[in-house]
Formats: sequence, C-alpha cells, structure tokens
Amino acid sequence: MTKNQVLRFGLPKGSLQDATLEKMAKAGWNISVSSRSYIPYVDDDELAIRMIRAQEISRYVEHGYLDCGITGYDWIEENGSKVHEVGEFQFSKVTRQPTRWVLAVPEESPIKSVKDLKGKRIATEVVNLTKKYLRKHGVKAEVEFSWGATEVKAHELVDAIVEITETGSSLRANKLRIVDTLLLSTPRLIANQDAWKNEWKRRKIETLALLLKGALEAESKVGLKMNIAQKNLDNLLKNLPALRNPTISNLSQNGWVAVETIIDEHVVRELIPALKAAGAEGIIEYPLNKVVY
Amino acid sequence: MTKNQVLRFGLPKGSLQDATLEKMAKAGWNISVSSRSYIPYVDDDELAIRMIRAQEISRYVEHGYLDCGITGYDWIEENGSKVHEVGEFQFSKVTRQPTRWVLAVPEESPIKSVKDLKGKRIATEVVNLTKKYLRKHGVKAEVEFSWGATEVKAHELVDAIVEITETGSSLRANKLRIVDTLLLSTPRLIANQDAWKNEWKRRKIETLALLLKGALEAESKVGLKMNIAQKNLDNLLKNLPALRNPTISNLSQNGWVAVETIIDEHVVRELIPALKAAGAEGIIEYPLNKVVY
Amino acid sequence: MTKNQVLRFGLPKGSLQDATLEKMAKAGWNISVSSRSYIPYVDDDELAIRMIRAQEISRYVEHGYLDCGITGYDWIEENGSKVHEVGEFQFSKVTRQPTRWVLAVPEESPIKSVKDLKGKRIATEVVNLTKKYLRKHGVKAEVEFSWGATEVKAHELVDAIVEITETGSSLRANKLRIVDTLLLSTPRLIANQDAWKNEWKRRKIETLALLLKGALEAESKVGLKMNIAQKNLDNLLKNLPALRNPTISNLSQNGWVAVETIIDEHVVRELIPALKAAGAEGIIEYPLNKVVY
Amino acid sequence: MTKNQVLRFGLPKGSLQDATLEKMAKAGWNISVSSRSYIPYVDDDELAIRMIRAQEISRYVEHGYLDCGITGYDWIEENGSKVHEVGEFQFSKVTRQPTRWVLAVPEESPIKSVKDLKGKRIATEVVNLTKKYLRKHGVKAEVEFSWGATEVKAHELVDAIVEITETGSSLRANKLRIVDTLLLSTPRLIANQDAWKNEWKRRKIETLALLLKGALEAESKVGLKMNIAQKNLDNLLKNLPALRNPTISNLSQNGWVAVETIIDEHVVRELIPALKAAGAEGIIEYPLNKVVY
Amino acid sequence: MTKNQVLRFGLPKGSLQDATLEKMAKAGWNISVSSRSYIPYVDDDELAIRMIRAQEISRYVEHGYLDCGITGYDWIEENGSKVHEVGEFQFSKVTRQPTRWVLAVPEESPIKSVKDLKGKRIATEVVNLTKKYLRKHGVKAEVEFSWGATEVKAHELVDAIVEITETGSSLRANKLRIVDTLLLSTPRLIANQDAWKNEWKRRKIETLALLLKGALEAESKVGLKMNIAQKNLDNLLKNLPALRNPTISNLSQNGWVAVETIIDEHVVRELIPALKAAGAEGIIEYPLNKVVY
Amino acid sequence: MTKNQVLRFGLPKGSLQDATLEKMAKAGWNISVSSRSYIPYVDDDELAIRMIRAQEISRYVEHGYLDCGITGYDWIEENGSKVHEVGEFQFSKVTRQPTRWVLAVPEESPIKSVKDLKGKRIATEVVNLTKKYLRKHGVKAEVEFSWGATEVKAHELVDAIVEITETGSSLRANKLRIVDTLLLSTPRLIANQDAWKNEWKRRKIETLALLLKGALEAESKVGLKMNIAQKNLDNLLKNLPALRNPTISNLSQNGWVAVETIIDEHVVRELIPALKAAGAEGIIEYPLNKVVY
Repeated sequence: MTKNQVLRFGLPKGSLQDATLEKMAKAGWNISVSSRSYIPYVDDDELAIRMIRAQEISRYVEHGYLDCGITGYDWIEENGSKVHEVGEFQFSKVTRQPTRWVLAVPEESPIKSVKDLKGKRIATEVVNLTKKYLRKHGVKAEVEFSWGATEVKAHELVDAIVEITETGSSLRANKLRIVDTLLLSTPRLIANQDAWKNEWKRRKIETLALLLKGALEAESKVGLKMNIAQKNLDNLLKNLPALRNPTISNLSQNGWVAVETIIDEHVVRELIPALKAAGAEGIIEYPLNKVVY
Repeated sequence: MTKNQVLRFGLPKGSLQDATLEKMAKAGWNISVSSRSYIPYVDDDELAIRMIRAQEISRYVEHGYLDCGITGYDWIEENGSKVHEVGEFQFSKVTRQPTRWVLAVPEESPIKSVKDLKGKRIATEVVNLTKKYLRKHGVKAEVEFSWGATEVKAHELVDAIVEITETGSSLRANKLRIVDTLLLSTPRLIANQDAWKNEWKRRKIETLALLLKGALEAESKVGLKMNIAQKNLDNLLKNLPALRNPTISNLSQNGWVAVETIIDEHVVRELIPALKAAGAEGIIEYPLNKVVY
Repeated sequence: MTKNQVLRFGLPKGSLQDATLEKMAKAGWNISVSSRSYIPYVDDDELAIRMIRAQEISRYVEHGYLDCGITGYDWIEENGSKVHEVGEFQFSKVTRQPTRWVLAVPEESPIKSVKDLKGKRIATEVVNLTKKYLRKHGVKAEVEFSWGATEVKAHELVDAIVEITETGSSLRANKLRIVDTLLLSTPRLIANQDAWKNEWKRRKIETLALLLKGALEAESKVGLKMNIAQKNLDNLLKNLPALRNPTISNLSQNGWVAVETIIDEHVVRELIPALKAAGAEGIIEYPLNKVVY
Repeated sequence: MTKNQVLRFGLPKGSLQDATLEKMAKAGWNISVSSRSYIPYVDDDELAIRMIRAQEISRYVEHGYLDCGITGYDWIEENGSKVHEVGEFQFSKVTRQPTRWVLAVPEESPIKSVKDLKGKRIATEVVNLTKKYLRKHGVKAEVEFSWGATEVKAHELVDAIVEITETGSSLRANKLRIVDTLLLSTPRLIANQDAWKNEWKRRKIETLALLLKGALEAESKVGLKMNIAQKNLDNLLKNLPALRNPTISNLSQNGWVAVETIIDEHVVRELIPALKAAGAEGIIEYPLNKVVY
Repeated sequence: MTKNQVLRFGLPKGSLQDATLEKMAKAGWNISVSSRSYIPYVDDDELAIRMIRAQEISRYVEHGYLDCGITGYDWIEENGSKVHEVGEFQFSKVTRQPTRWVLAVPEESPIKSVKDLKGKRIATEVVNLTKKYLRKHGVKAEVEFSWGATEVKAHELVDAIVEITETGSSLRANKLRIVDTLLLSTPRLIANQDAWKNEWKRRKIETLALLLKGALEAESKVGLKMNIAQKNLDNLLKNLPALRNPTISNLSQNGWVAVETIIDEHVVRELIPALKAAGAEGIIEYPLNKVVY
Repeated sequence: MTKNQVLRFGLPKGSLQDATLEKMAKAGWNISVSSRSYIPYVDDDELAIRMIRAQEISRYVEHGYLDCGITGYDWIEENGSKVHEVGEFQFSKVTRQPTRWVLAVPEESPIKSVKDLKGKRIATEVVNLTKKYLRKHGVKAEVEFSWGATEVKAHELVDAIVEITETGSSLRANKLRIVDTLLLSTPRLIANQDAWKNEWKRRKIETLALLLKGALEAESKVGLKMNIAQKNLDNLLKNLPALRNPTISNLSQNGWVAVETIIDEHVVRELIPALKAAGAEGIIEYPLNKVVY
C-alpha cells in the first residue's frame, strides 16, 4: 500500500443519507457533510467520499468515476449497470423489509392484472424497469416519466403508476390498489469491475464490508450475562437453544459460573422469563457496537 | 397460545408519548407511530397498540376495548375506573418524582386551607377528584371543568384551581401559592379484570411488566469492571458495600482477579475515587439495557 | 464535610454549552437549564452551577465569585486572570484539535508577516492577546474591538483581523489568508486560588476532574472481547501490540480463553481483520461510559 | 365618560386567535399578546382584553366577568348562555362559510339516520348540543365527552361522533360519512345583559362593532377609479349596475370626468373587461382599510 | 355560458408555486392548496385548478387534460409542446429578469466555446434543449439527464453542464464559468389549441390574462396625489414628463387644483424632491392593486 | 453627477436589521442580503450598502470608510464619534418610544440612587457611557464590560448593571429595579463630515432622509374620503379639527362635495362615529405608502 492510494466511495444523497452515514460511523468511519463543500470529510486518508443521488451511483461506479458505492438494487437494475456486487445490507431498522416497486391503480379501476394495461398510459420514476416488465408480459402500453407526486396522478392524469412503497400505507391513503409487484430492492455495496481486480482496492472494500456487516449485525443483537449454579447449567443450556455457544467462566464462589452470550435482541423478551425460571440470577443485558463471528 | 391471540394495549398519546415509546423500545418492543395511520406498528404479532389520551385509557381498559394500558394513577382515580393495577413505573429520568395535583390560589389570596373554599368556585381538569376531596373535608364549593390554561384563571375568573405540577415552578411563575396536595400520581400498568383472568393474556402482561421493569432498572444503573490483586480483594469488598454481590473471575495472571458488578449510576462519582484508593486498576464503566434480578 | 458546603462551578454559556452539559452528564452530573430560571438544576447538593459566557468565566473565578469553572485557555489569557489550572479537556469529538486564533488578511493583501502590520488597523475580539502579540514582535499597530462578523471586515474596513478558527474553512470561504497563529486554545478546568487551598473544595474539584477525564477518555475507546484457543494466544498478543494489557479469563471449555481489552476506537477498523486472521472467534465490540486507569 | 371606565372584552384563544387579532388591528385596536404576561396590551385605555378559550367565553360574559366577547354561536348554545348578541361576523376569508357540527359514522356503518343511533355510543366535544339533538328526535343514546382526535374513535371505540367540519375533507380522509348536520356556527359579538344597559359600555361596544364591521366590509371591497368621456358616462352607468352610486368629479380636460366607486372585490374580474369595452381608460384598483356606509 | 362550463387551469407546483398563487390572488382569484387534498379550492365555479410540476404542465395542456396553464418558456420548448401562447408574465419582483439556461464548465476547464464540447459528456435537466443546441452548432456530444445537484457534477463527473441561473452567483460559488446561453425563459400563459378555438374558454382565458397583467402592472406602480396652485401647474407638467397624463381636478379652494397620476415606483425617489421644488404640497403616495390602461 | 459616484451607506446588522430593510423598501430602495455574499444588493447604482453591527457604524462613518449610516444615538455617544447628524427616525411601530439605558439593581438592593454606587462593581455593554455618567455624579465605581446576559449578573456577580430596555418588562421579569435613566436613544441617520461637505453626496443623503421620513410618516397615517352635502360641510369642518386641511372637490351631483384628508390612524376609531353623526356618507379609509408635506 502506497501512501497515495485512495478508494473513491459513493454514498447515497437524500432520503438514505442519514441512515448511511450513521452506519458508516458505527462501522468506524466518521463522515461529516458540510454545506460549504460538496466533498465530505472522512477520518481515513485512504477514502474519498462522494454523496450522490441513489439513482445515479451505479452509473458512476460502472464508468469508473467511483471505485465502489452503496445504492439500491432497484437503481442498479433501472440503469442496467454492469458492476460487481460485494454484498447486501439492510439499513432500515424498523421493518427490515425490502422496498417494493409496485404497479398501482385507483381502487375502483377496472384494471385487475398487467394484461389490462394494454394501450394504457403509466407514470413512473423507473421507466426502464416498467418497460422491461411490460415486455416480459407481452403488453404494449405507454410509459411516461413522472417527476414526483406520482400517486396523485393515478386518479385522473394516467391509468396506472409504478411506485415505490414500504408498507403500502401511502398508497392506501391515496385510495390506490396494488395490482402487482415488479421488484424487491435492498441496499447493495457495489464495486467497479476493474477496481475489484486491483488487490489494494479489493482488500479495502472487503474491510469496509466486514465492518459494516459487523455494525449492522450488532444492531439486532445484545450481550446477555447471568450467574447460575453449576448444577443447573446443563439444564439451562439444553432447554434454551437460543443461548448458542456461550462463554462460561468460573467464578471464585464455589459451585457458580458466569454465562455470557450474544443473542438476537428480539428473542430477549421471551428468553429472560425463561432464564429466570431456569435459575439464572443477576441477568443483565448490554448494548453492542459490532459483532464479527 | 394460538396464533391468533392478540393483546390490545393502550399507550398514552401526547406529553407522555415519547417517553413511553422510548421505554417500550428499551423493554424490547419497537413501536412506530405514523401520521398517516392511527394504528401504530409494533414488531410483535401478539400485540395491538393503540395511542389514546392518558385521560381516557382507564375508561377503555375498564370497558374491555383494551386489555391493558399505561396511564397515570390520577386519571384512573378521576375516572373511577375498576381495573387491575399490575405495577407502578416512573418514566421521567430527571427528577424521578411523582406528579402532584395541588390546590392553588393567588399569592395574595385570603384562602389558607381547604376550609376557606366554602362557597367558592374552583376550576380544574379533574372535576371528580376535586369534588371527592371537598366531600372528604366537608366543604361545599362549586367545581367547574377547565379546558386548559387553568393557571391563568386563578387570578380573576375563579377563586382557586386544582392543577398538576412537578416542581411547582410553573405555579410560582404565575404567582400562585399551593394550599394543599390532593393526589400524588405515577404511571401505572393496568389490566382489564377479565383479561387478567385469561391465562394467556395475563402471562403476556406479566412479561411486559417484567421487561419494562428491567429496562427502567437499567436506566439508573451501570456496569463496573476492574482488576485487583488478590491480596487487596477482601479489603476492597469489606470497605465498599456499594460493590454488592460482585462477580469475581480468575485471571490468567497469577494473583489477580477481575471484579465486575452492577451499581447505581449516582454512586459512581463517589465510588471511583475510592476504588482507585483501594488499589483497583483499569476501571471501566459501561452502559446497560436491562437489569433483572 | 459539612452539610452546607457548596462548590460554585461556572460553565460556558453559548456555543460550548451543549457539549459541556453532555460531558458533565457522562461524568455523572445531570444538569438541566431552564428558560424560567437562570440557576440550573444539578443533581448534587454540593454543587451550584452558573452558566456564564466563556469570555467572562476566568474573571469571576479570579475574583472568587466562582470556586471553579470551565473555559478556554484563550479567554484566561485575554483576561490575564490569575487562577489555578486543574486540567485540560478536549470536548469536540470530530477533530479533537485545539481552536486557533490566527492573524488573517485578504488573499491578495501585500501583508505577508507580522512585520507588515506596522501602522495598520486590526479588528478582533481579543484585543489584549493581539496587543501582546504585537509587542512581542515589536510592531506598532492600531487594534480595535470587533463586535462580530469580523471576517467580513478584513476586506475593506480594516487591514487585518485576529479571529478564531478550527479548520480554516470559514476563513477560506471568506477569501482570507492565514498569516500567523497567535494562540492554540483548549478547554480548561480552572480554580480560584483560595478555593484550591481549601481541602474540601480541592477534593471536590479533583473528583470532578477525575470523572470528566474518565468520561472523555471513554469517548474515544471501546471494549473488545473475543475467544481464542490457548495455543494461539501467545502469537496473538505478540503480533498485536494494540491489545495492550488484556484481561484473560479461563473458559470452562478446555483449551480456550476469553480475551478482553479496552482500545482506541480508531484502530478497531484495522484490528478486527487482523484478529480474525490470528484465529479469534466471536469478536464483539461494546461501548464504554468511563475509563479510569 | 370618566377616566377610569374600562370595558372588559374577551377574545378567543387558540385557533381563532390570530384571525381575531388581525381584524381588531384593522378596526383600529392594536393588541399584543406576550408570552410573559397573560394580559394582552391594547392601545386603548378604555379596553381590558382577555384571551380565553372560545368554549368558555360565553360563560364568563353571562356571569359578568367580561362585559363582552367574541365567540362562536356553537359554544353559546352548548353552554346555554343568556347573553345579548350584538352582531355576527365572519372572519375566515377563504370560504366565508359557517362551520358545521355534523353527526358522522364510518363509511361502511349501517347507521343511516339519527333514528339508527338508538342504544349506541356517541363521542363528541359538544355533549349538550348532541343530547339536545337526540331529545329533539326522541332517540335515546349514550353521549360521551371526547378529549380530541374524535375522528379516529369512530372506527372502533364508539358508534358515531359529532364533530366540527368546514369542508368535510378531514372527515372523508378518515373514511367517515356525514349523516346529519346539527348546527351551523359563525363568530358573534356578545354582551353581558347588564353591561348592555350601561350607557357608556353600550356606546363603546357599538363603536367596536361599527369599526369591526367597517374593517370586515373593506376586506371584500376595493376602490376603483377610471376616466371616461362625458358622452359615454350615461351608457356606462346604465349598463353596469355594479358601479353603484359612484363619485363623479370634473376633470380640467373638457368633456372628461373621473368616476370613482367602491365595489365587491369578487366582481372586479368581470367588471374590468366590461369597463374597457364601455370606453373607460386608466382604470386603477386600490386597496381599502375600512368602508362605512 | 352554461352553468356547467369549467376551464381546467394548471399552475406550477414547487418553487414557483407561492409566487403564482400570490399573483392569482392579486388578479382576483383566491386559491387555497390543502395538504389533505390535491385539488386546490378556488373561489370561481368556472375554474378547476390543478397544481402540477412546471416541467409537466405544457404536456398536459397539449394533450387536453388541461385547457390552459402557466409554465416557463423553457419547459414548453424542452417538451416541444404544441400549444397556443397567450401571454408572457414576469413574476419575480427583485430582478425582473428572465431566468437563463447556460452552458457552464469549471473555471479552469479548457472548454471555451460550444465547439470544444465535441466528444464530451454534458449533464442537464433539459436534455432536449441541449441536444437541439448541439445540433444547431453541429457538435456531437453525449447528453445525460441529471436528477439534480447538477452544478456539483461539473467538477469531476461530467465535462460540462447546462443549468438554470438567475444572477450567476450560484454558478460562481461553485467555481463554474459560463460558456454560452442557450435560452432565456419567462413564465407564459399557454392554452390548448382546441380550447383556444372554443369561444367561452377563450374569453375566460383572455379575462384571466387581462387581470393578471393588471395585477403585475400594479406591482411596479404607485398612485401619487398632490395639491398645487393653478399658476404653477403648467410649469410642473412641462418639466416633469414622468407625470404622464395626470387627472387634474378642481378644488373648492380658488386657484388650487389636485393632481393625481400613476407612476413607476422606481422613479418616485427622484420625483418627490422635484415635485416639492416645483411647489407641490401635501404629496401622498398610495399602493395599487391593479392598473389597466 | 458622474456615472461613477457612489454613496457608501452603513445599515445596522442584527436585531434592527429587518426593520431597517423594511423601512428602506418603503422609502423606495429594495435591498437584498444574501448569505453567500457580504455585500447586499440594492437597486440603485449610486448606493453601496454595508451591513455592520450598530455598535460599530459610527466609528466607520467617522473614519470615512462609510459616507453615512443608520445607528442608535446610544452607540454614537458610547463611541464618542464626531459625525454630522442628519435626522432622527423611529422604527419600532408598537410603542414608538425611544429605548432607554438604565441603571438597575435587584429589587431588594439597598442601592437607591447613583450616590450609593460608590465602590461598587457595575456590568454593562456601554462602558464609556457608564463611566461618563459616574463622573458627572462624582461617584467612583468599577465598571466592567459585559458580553451579554447582563440582567442575570445583577443578582450575584455584580452590584448593579446598566442595560437597555424598552418597556422595563424584561427587567421586572428578572426582579430588577430601575434606579436611574442614563440615556434615551433613537435611530439616527449620520454622515461623515467630509461627505456632508461634498455637494453630490449631501444631496443624495438628503433625498434618502426625505423619503425615509415620508415612509415613516405614512406608517401612522391613513387616507380618509367621504361624501357630504354642501350645506353640512361647514359644520363638519368646524366641529372636527382632526380634518385638518382637507381637499374638497366638487361632485357632478348638485349640492354634494367629496372631502378627502390624511389623518393619524389612531384617531380614526373616534372620528368615524363622529363623521357619521355629522352627515358624512360612504366613508372609506385607505392605506398610504408615503406622506410628504
């Protein structure tokens, strides 16, 4: 590694920006975006960060302006970009479900399936995905690019829309009905194909991926510690498979051991009552920054 | 437990809302309230959350629209609701003191005690509590419901008010004097009486209570670890009773042990200097999510 | 210690206020500043907090109105205050660099060094520091107090300015060039000289300093734990000097030990890949509240 | 009129507050509400302003705490207050339509008319109006007071609601159907019956009413001026009855006159094209502060 | 005109929205846009308002979904829409200059004229305008659609941009140099070609245009009145040509006349001193709503 | 006047900024302050505007960096600046009273007059004004510069303060008592003494002053028009001296005249009822931009 080597890394500007910067900080890279400069500061001389619209990142990674970047699978497909996919990440904590691009029509529309779109007009931000979808089903229809407020148009300006949704509630609020799902999308770390062949860049990208994974993994996990009498230990471990692979250390008090493990946060609420029942004492749960197996 | 069983759980909307949702998240249930839908999302299929004004929750728990809920003791009493009280919680970190409903009058008012209220007019949001208080003291006075800004009325529209206060500073700022305290109130977890008799519902409510307690307990506690020479250990433990029931593990380095314990955060600032004096090294304090004894 | 003893502690109002209160909370003292009262609440009967402009704190500590306070080294020097300096702290996480007072001129100005200031006019908030600097270099120039927006004046109202900067970006944005640095400044805990001689007050101030140090230390550190086979341990420790002084505990599983240590957060991103390579398993990183050696 | 006479005037706090203060300013009384004091400042020594919830004003006017006040007809009726109504005002510029209290149910509810409410539960902020309405129709039903977010309750907590609406859009957004209208309401200036008999107070109230009317009148009117040849004047006036009662002044230029009139703003957009067609020149429209016939 | 005739009128959503609604209100049509409904309210039964992105309006006017609309000349051209242009308006008060679409490059770029673009890559929101411009100059270059933050891309992602600017200051702040201007654009009122042939619709559109013009005209004009002795009048009028075509009315006081005129606001600051010098007294300036010659 | 002549005009930055820019706009100069540039735009090539702290303007006018400026009388005195005062203006509409610099002490302080300050410590932003005041009364006391929050210091850090106040309410809220008034201050237009001797600059400054006066005058005045029968006119004018110097024009309707006048806004509410009583009809009030006698 020479002193001057730098990896150009594109992060998504806009709605995903705050979540992405927060995950990067958890992984160990502090980035600060200034309103005065379009080049963010990062506390790593080997990285050059660029904030770019999610829609455009894959294009710039493909062309080599960026060595790698984080963007959605949807926009990689919409742009038809030829890039190396390093890994998949899920940033949104609440639901941890992929976003969906769906075909939607007004509740009272006669359109019931993609076949009914023949000769109709569709508004969407993802024109290419929509055309590909229509071709796959052998349907000819007009697809027009929508600059926003797409949901509102479905009621009188066009016949159908293809729009993004997480839970569908925004569509329902606009009295729209989902006809079909075109694509499920999650954030991806992608690399330029030449950058991926460069040994130094590849190692750097893999380190980023390892620590991002470790930070995301830690978000849904917690540490759990408890004391238990030696005689109850076997029973505890046998009946509680969630206590996978615990660290058991001897205590100076005879006949007692400390059990420590890392578990999914969402099983804690069922596990703690069971642990108490099995004889565990002094149960504590503590937060984690990273988990790397 | 069948797949379809659901516990209907009411949480207080308004000033207590953020604190309540934060505690629920610490306990292990992530709830998100959308402006588009009045039904919050919770990551537990067995729970149905409803956000309802604190004033109304006990009523809906009593009637069975809700199986259980969190609300203040004051509103349970004001509504005279017949419900089962599962437990008491204290949510506000800063003072950890109950809220008080007080009888207040202008600083210069001749009213010195409840007896002086005879024939007077009182404005309050808690009409029933106030009437009950007057009956208890055998005083006849007019009680009228106030829609808000009650403190301001005491100076000319009515003779006295019954109002909520935490530290009394808002009353003092309005140049009011506290005459008496009617009620101290803290948040309570309450259950519908039939729901409490249902085995599945009761177990679910008890789990909620156990983990909420564990999360609240952890807020005022921290973990403390240090290394100490074996020969100094007895002295350390004898002189520092705050180190209640520590976990002592052997280190591979001969003659040294690791001491780990959970203590009240507010004693840390006195304990750490004392630990150093007793020979402890490498003292670290770390945060906790839950503490269950 | 008598019940009535109180230490009067001044904290900086304004731009440093939020950072200071956050550090105090991490150290163990919760302070709440109310808009209704100018006396902040603190959960320690032995402390009386006053929020005062950073510019004025050293003056009031010197006069004895305050027993101690936190302020910048720059204002201690500007005021020429005779106080005891207890310790130095660095509050700003991002850069952790001292603030600098610099002499700056327009990019195209002919002024290249302090010598060129002869007979010129300089605007600044730190009139005394600037005069002292000029005297040191034997330069006679006019120094005038600036009430703010100093950077803007350098282009036409005066010939040069002495202004504060962290990264220099604000100066560059105003097309100014740095000619020289007058002073580097960091936050300091200072004490009144008589208070420092009083045994009770000195002990209290030292406790504050110890715990503030512990909290600041913890901000740049994390806890790291991992399991490793006994046979790989020596190799691990020899090749990874960052694992300074780890706690090694025996596991009940034969041939395996748990290694735990406290390290600088910024080396984690290089250390974790190396630990994996050396055979470590189940690596977890966890956050710390305080670290006291 | 003695120097000390003062009229106590109640204005509605909350959603109507800003509109009310703006109208009072247009009428000639500048009122400023300070967050520091609950007594607003008004630039007239003969007035004492009180900001009070619209719900409560009629009660305090009836009791004589206030000499007069502005509130909605709905709350006068809900409170059953015996007061003298001085005049009706309409403050909301956009629609200039009264607010409506309506009975609403979920879109899919079987309730089609008031008769279907028998034995049902209704939530509302106007309990008395609702009970009166049920009595009028001979229907027995349970009416409960709602603290807010009433619309949301109609879907599962109660069977129907009585709620305020202007355009019905908020009800539709909540998927509610209007079953019946209970009351139309507009703002009223009301006076205490004794105050109305006091000569000085009555004159003061009438002056307030006159100038408020003048200011409201001016909001929907504009001044219009134009020049026209004398020979075309008769034709202009005959064919454009909207030019009611114009002021016609002689110009120094022979054979031309200036025509000036006050007209409703909303006819301007039709009138100006017609004026041009009739030979008017140099048409200008100017704003008005007050119009008093 | 039948009762049911309605003109569908599209107004630009987004950055021009507030200015447009304000001008419409001055012209005589009050429109209120609700966050709950996408159909704005307008106080004219013969109009149906739709808020649509400026970029899309000409498309919907061309297709006949809208009868007419207000949008920029730039987007009419970009869309190549075949519509009837009714008139040109200028909404922005401060500069009253058209917006410009310019070709810009980094300050230090070797590109000096459109010819240098050969084989380069250009990012822009107006892909068609840019391609047309290149064709006109016989230059082959790659044009790509930019989703925003175009200025930032010029420094490394592309070779040049085509971007909108009013004063050029945003481009300079981004260290870009303007190479050429492609298009000057002002807001236009456009009509669908069939709607323009319909007599009722055309009359309605012409009325809208007349009153919008009248309202815009009034923004830069004021009314001026003064009294002057008859003997000084000729001299006043001869020397002050700005007093174009004044209305002169006789006063009851012998030998004095009132002079009234409408003038450009920006000459007032020079005219008033001159009027005083010429003997005018009691000069007042008053605001105007509309001016129609 | 040559094309290149420019008047350098300083306006106060900070709390007075918005009011000042609004008055300048009413006077006829539109100024826009951009966050990107410290030089504001003004629509007059002969003016160069600079926004500078009110505290510093008189200094820069005295030195000739500025030709003229608007600042408070207080800061002219504090700086002891030798400048030509062109005129006095009052910008704050609500009270139209000068700001006062007062000597204030805690309510319960034994200090009753300036004489009691002997040997005390006083905090203030106006050190020179305070020292001059003490000298005038032959009192020796320590005066220290306060960087802000001065009111809070009076309770324990110093013995008295000299602080600015408009109505005294902020002092009362801090439980301070006013002992004496040092200075009343209003905004002033000041000129550099050489600039005032330059004919072109002086004329430009006088034009600015004339139109600012005209705009301020118009703020408290309105236009009033009415029609009245000729026979009632004398009576009207005799009994209503507020109708000073009206313009009376003949109407074409025999026996009627139009009366028009400019009056103080605050007498309108008493005048209109009187006018009606005297037989006036069709009374209208309209707003004014400028009034120049």
